[in-house]
Amino acid sequence: MTTIQPLVFTGFDPHRNALEESLFHTANGYLGVRGCPEEGAPQGVPSIRGAYINAFYDTKPIHYGEKLYGFPETQQGIVNLTDVQTVRLYLEDEAYAPLASGQVLDYKRELDMQKGHAIRTVRWRSPAGREVEVTVRRMASLAQRELFILHYTVKALNFSGRVRLVSREEGDVRNFADPNDPRVAGQSLQHLAVKEIRPLESGGLIVSRTLASNLQLAVAVGYTPPAGFSLWMEGQTSAIEGHMEGMLYQGQSIAFTKHVVFADSRRHQDPVGTALSLLKETTAHPLMRYEVLQREMLQQFWQHSRITVSGDPALQRSLDFSLYSLYCSVGRDAVSSMPAKGLSGEGYEGHYFWDVEIYVFPFFLMTSPDLARGLLSYRHAILPAAREHARAMGHQKGALYAWRTIAGPECSGYFPSGSAQYHLGGDIAHAFLQYYYATDDLDFMAHKGAEVLVEVARLFLDAGHWQGDSFRIDAVTGPDEYSCIVNNNFYTNAGAQDTLRGAARMVKKLQEAGKAGPVLAATGVTPSELSAFERAADHMYLPYDEALGIHAQDDGFLRLKKLDLHTIPKENYPLLLHYHPLWLYRHQVCKQADTVLAHYLYEDLADEDTMRRSYEYYEACTTHDSSLSRCVFSIMAARLNNIDKALAYFRDSATLDLDDAHGNTKDGIHTATMGGTWLALTAGFAGLRIKQGGLSLSPRLPRSWTGYSFPMMWRNSALHVTVTGDGCQVETLSGDPVCLAINGQPVQVSPGHPAHLPLKVG
Amino acid sequence: MTTIQPLVFTGFDPHRNALEESLFHTANGYLGVRGCPEEGAPQGVPSIRGAYINAFYDTKPIHYGEKLYGFPETQQGIVNLTDVQTVRLYLEDEAYAPLASGQVLDYKRELDMQKGHAIRTVRWRSPAGREVEVTVRRMASLAQRELFILHYTVKALNFSGRVRLVSREEGDVRNFADPNDPRVAGQSLQHLAVKEIRPLESGGLIVSRTLASNLQLAVAVGYTPPAGFSLWMEGQTSAIEGHMEGMLYQGQSIAFTKHVVFADSRRHQDPVGTALSLLKETTAHPLMRYEVLQREMLQQFWQHSRITVSGDPALQRSLDFSLYSLYCSVGRDAVSSMPAKGLSGEGYEGHYFWDVEIYVFPFFLMTSPDLARGLLSYRHAILPAAREHARAMGHQKGALYAWRTIAGPECSGYFPSGSAQYHLGGDIAHAFLQYYYATDDLDFMAHKGAEVLVEVARLFLDAGHWQGDSFRIDAVTGPDEYSCIVNNNFYTNAGAQDTLRGAARMVKKLQEAGKAGPVLAATGVTPSELSAFERAADHMYLPYDEALGIHAQDDGFLRLKKLDLHTIPKENYPLLLHYHPLWLYRHQVCKQADTVLAHYLYEDLADEDTMRRSYEYYEACTTHDSSLSRCVFSIMAARLNNIDKALAYFRDSATLDLDDAHGNTKDGIHTATMGGTWLALTAGFAGLRIKQGGLSLSPRLPRSWTGYSFPMMWRNSALHVTVTGDGCQVETLSGDPVCLAINGQPVQVSPGHPAHLPLKVG
Repeated sequence: MTTIQPLVFTGFDPHRNALEESLFHTANGYLGVRGCPEEGAPQGVPSIRGAYINAFYDTKPIHYGEKLYGFPETQQGIVNLTDVQTVRLYLEDEAYAPLASGQVLDYKRELDMQKGHAIRTVRWRSPAGREVEVTVRRMASLAQRELFILHYTVKALNFSGRVRLVSREEGDVRNFADPNDPRVAGQSLQHLAVKEIRPLESGGLIVSRTLASNLQLAVAVGYTPPAGFSLWMEGQTSAIEGHMEGMLYQGQSIAFTKHVVFADSRRHQDPVGTALSLLKETTAHPLMRYEVLQREMLQQFWQHSRITVSGDPALQRSLDFSLYSLYCSVGRDAVSSMPAKGLSGEGYEGHYFWDVEIYVFPFFLMTSPDLARGLLSYRHAILPAAREHARAMGHQKGALYAWRTIAGPECSGYFPSGSAQYHLGGDIAHAFLQYYYATDDLDFMAHKGAEVLVEVARLFLDAGHWQGDSFRIDAVTGPDEYSCIVNNNFYTNAGAQDTLRGAARMVKKLQEAGKAGPVLAATGVTPSELSAFERAADHMYLPYDEALGIHAQDDGFLRLKKLDLHTIPKENYPLLLHYHPLWLYRHQVCKQADTVLAHYLYEDLADEDTMRRSYEYYEACTTHDSSLSRCVFSIMAARLNNIDKALAYFRDSATLDLDDAHGNTKDGIHTATMGGTWLALTAGFAGLRIKQGGLSLSPRLPRSWTGYSFPMMWRNSALHVTVTGDGCQVETLSGDPVCLAINGQPVQVSPGHPAHLPLKVG
Repeated sequence: MTTIQPLVFTGFDPHRNALEESLFHTANGYLGVRGCPEEGAPQGVPSIRGAYINAFYDTKPIHYGEKLYGFPETQQGIVNLTDVQTVRLYLEDEAYAPLASGQVLDYKRELDMQKGHAIRTVRWRSPAGREVEVTVRRMASLAQRELFILHYTVKALNFSGRVRLVSREEGDVRNFADPNDPRVAGQSLQHLAVKEIRPLESGGLIVSRTLASNLQLAVAVGYTPPAGFSLWMEGQTSAIEGHMEGMLYQGQSIAFTKHVVFADSRRHQDPVGTALSLLKETTAHPLMRYEVLQREMLQQFWQHSRITVSGDPALQRSLDFSLYSLYCSVGRDAVSSMPAKGLSGEGYEGHYFWDVEIYVFPFFLMTSPDLARGLLSYRHAILPAAREHARAMGHQKGALYAWRTIAGPECSGYFPSGSAQYHLGGDIAHAFLQYYYATDDLDFMAHKGAEVLVEVARLFLDAGHWQGDSFRIDAVTGPDEYSCIVNNNFYTNAGAQDTLRGAARMVKKLQEAGKAGPVLAATGVTPSELSAFERAADHMYLPYDEALGIHAQDDGFLRLKKLDLHTIPKENYPLLLHYHPLWLYRHQVCKQADTVLAHYLYEDLADEDTMRRSYEYYEACTTHDSSLSRCVFSIMAARLNNIDKALAYFRDSATLDLDDAHGNTKDGIHTATMGGTWLALTAGFAGLRIKQGGLSLSPRLPRSWTGYSFPMMWRNSALHVTVTGDGCQVETLSGDPVCLAINGQPVQVSPGHPAHLPLKVG
């Protein structure tokens, strides 16, 4: 396997600090720790000091200017955990403070995506002239999810002297707030109250509870001090400190290790007991053990996930960073999913959105189907809350998934671009169906998938209505939040059609297989209901404009005021931060283009010419103010054989976080865009589609690339796809023979018998 | 002039207390004092203790679940004033507490609408057996707006003894809150801070400031104690008390008077000086003087305003109450207008809405044109804020009036049924045009009216757009808040058309009259702009459904899911308190029917058959959950000659507050419904219309009535209209000859030469 280049940032720029905290965070799907300076960020240096456990939340009231019936009263939000990042270093009487005083001689951040750790190395000259090199290595263990390890090394470059280290675990923490950005929480609140401080012999325990949701968090810490250093622990009101002191001689390095175990009451019956026993266990092993496990797990990950692109190292770096980040962010239990910002920040308050199913899920489905199944299991687990939400929204039947949530209840404080996004049900159904097509896992569908499909189908049936012989769905919001509360959103109706049809088919398939017991027991779905699903699907109204020859985004969109995006001053993007929503709703302007997305996901609904006209029409209206927009345009540009444009969109999408293109990566990485980047390559350039009929590829190659390749799973077979100027090769690395279509031509591949076809042209 | 029966409620029902506080409040357009029990309301007896000055507000932050660009950050709300209602009476050692202890022998509330005061009389037996009759008379002076007089009489029925009276002015007051009703403020907050307590020789002064808006309020009080009673004043931290003590003998009555002067810094440069000098002046006069003035002013009011209905005393009482309440609630300066609840409560936070122009204004226009002009002057005065609001909402030109406001800025915390109601501009323009048609006051139009018309027309031109050869206005909300953010709301577009056309005409008329200087200076309107107004008006898109032969409420309404209102359980009304807005938006259901209202206001847009079909179609969809709905249905039922139905709607509308039909009169009276009641009689039964072409009537008579009559002003002539079974008679009481149309037939009336025509049939 080729080496994966680490992500390296050199040079010290205090204004980039919060951004780098996000990019160099360490996470494992359960736990995420931002890469904050151990010594603290002085006033004026942007910093969001945080650590998070996936789905570990507190609730807080939602206040409204005017509260109407059914508006959610409370909201769940991810909680900033007990801070375990702080280490203060004293060289004799001088505090190590590279961001505040003295002189930074060298500054380097590194994310090693093969070893799975982040390193910050600083060479610093103190005001008194002492030169020191401090290297901190951090790891959130993939093998032991509760474990975070911080390894701190100090090297004396030009002096000898007494050195003191104070490592602090602080329980008095708050969440970050920015009241002027709707994408960040508006209120800074304390969510965690310290319940117990217990110093241990060479470490300590902090037990806290969330104030409103009453969840428990236990954080156990263990120190391995530098050889020859004394260690003593100090318990304070809300903190524990480990003090280490000893001599450091010129040219010499000393290092200490801090093991931190986080255990929460959503996963552990006895968080305190778990934290203490895991601490004991993990500190008993040599540090090396977790480093080896980390490397092994990542080796496997890369083997079945890595995309390679020849001839574009910068893009390769972005791709590696994206896939690595996805792997480190995804929840591994039915309690959690993929927060919009992963575990790298508090943006969007740790909520799960539709992005998971549409943008992130396909990557896992085709590379780590177990993780994909986990994401679906989470949706199944919150079905009761979705049913309850449907009732609150006036539906007699079915389940309405909350637009943004952690444990299930609706957490949106603005329903027009929240609960009104009924397409989420279709997105979830689509993911379940894709899972079934790609894995053939009928048992999972029998026990979980079919129930979700039936409940979502019921909701669409209840939400819509018949007018003449067409089935219509009014008063919804599509993914494009620059149009809200519209009738017959094309994307929503297409998804509803897919769901209604898929649910009916799935129940029938289970009945044929004698596996329909669980879904019938759980839903009581009847044959006449299934017929009603099919009838509504068959007659679903999908708005189409004859004059333009395109699908309308909704009933009204194409008659709205046109807006020439070139007339908008550059500084007014993203528009949502500069225009009142009503102004946006009044214009033909899209944050992202629903119709273009629908043409990708439900491509059999339109012919190629319609897709092309739609693409062109909506491209002119779309601001890409949503980070989810460009990857979809990339996929569809590739689909329509506009490879140069596809590549441009792909690049923008792939480098979003590393370039901080939206200026908000400080609040966390954009996991959905990362998933979209994978999609833009596989579904875009390689033309990967998964349908009821099977797997297909239509590979194309951008002129500036010499080739690209990626692995994927199909049922129980591991495939590898390589695209070069010579054509497309599909190999089977292991498993059964696979039938697929390449450029519309059916081929079969099996171990030792790859297929090789020319690229699609035109 | 016939006697106007007082409104009398007898019998004691503690649960009706808050309701009666509203109904028996005393107000004069500047000041309003709820009719709260002087002795206080014990726990369990609903009470909203309050007094208000029109347009005297504090600001408070608006909190949002999700704050988007342009959402207002603060909100103005009417302030509950220094409480001057409290009087405690002690009979020897027993406190007078009819709502809490002892036995109420007789309980009577009376509103004398000729004398202009409210009286509460209680006969009570104390736990120790003392029987007393306490009569409190209250008056908010119409002659001296700052003055409130409380006259308190105690009669010993079966005992003699020492009596003590403690009358308290309390500065530590708060506003009322009910977080679960969107029609009432959600947060109880202190808004007034006491700055000075100054006891005077026989009274005192309390000076306060609003906490956020920093407005000043001075309240000066003067006592005239019962003869033979001692009086001493006590200043406390936030209050002043007047203590009176003396002997009361069986069968004897004693009485004290409290003069209270309120002066605020929105009207007075030196509120303290004003309050003190006005107190001196008003207490120097005998009480009788203000009673006489009050009666004289009301006599005039009734003379030029009273509607009489023969054969229905209950309805007559409701009508009298409605018109009296309107007169006592309307602002008399350009600082204030008509709060939705008058000055009788805090409902809707003392804000001014569109109701003023559409429901309340016509009554004043036709009975007290000076007051009508005052309402328009208020709109002109807040034009700068409306311009600013337009910019915030993304409009380059024009003025967008705030949906709800006191001093101009938008105070709505939910824009879909707030700022999105662009029809407000049309409503205001309509009122200005009606004013001009009825008064011929071209000078007012030159200096104020035309500027408002031009700025509102500009806004509609900027908000709308051309599609082909029709001018369309998207993303607005009509008066019916059960549909929000729709395209081409018929009512809004009709109002925009009226405004655009009216603005162009008015500027041209001023130019012809050589009076265009002020409007050109204020707006810089150009001939090409006027042409653009006219062109947009001429091509305004007014949605019409060919199949149904009716105007559609908006582009989408007639294709929404139908809702059979009979399937909704009775307890689920009003729907807004039982269904999520999205559910409402998805159905063909109206809180009030925009199209029916449009057919009344802009009746020349549709033929009779279309109006009838519209009426019938929308009647089946309308819940009348808005108190503004029934009067409009009454008008249109009369217009369509369905007189029985018109009468039923009229009754419901007229008795809304006295019957507490919406269950929320405790929060204040419904002034707009009261105006609507006047409209239902004059515009409904009498068919009164005011258009560019002049005045017209089409009188009809409900079968159960023997007749009705009403006075009105037209230009400088006082007219009186009498409708009986014999026909309709129009007399001129004073002024120039008037040309008008009765049943389409032109007639001229002049003093001594009435017109008499048969009633319209069919």
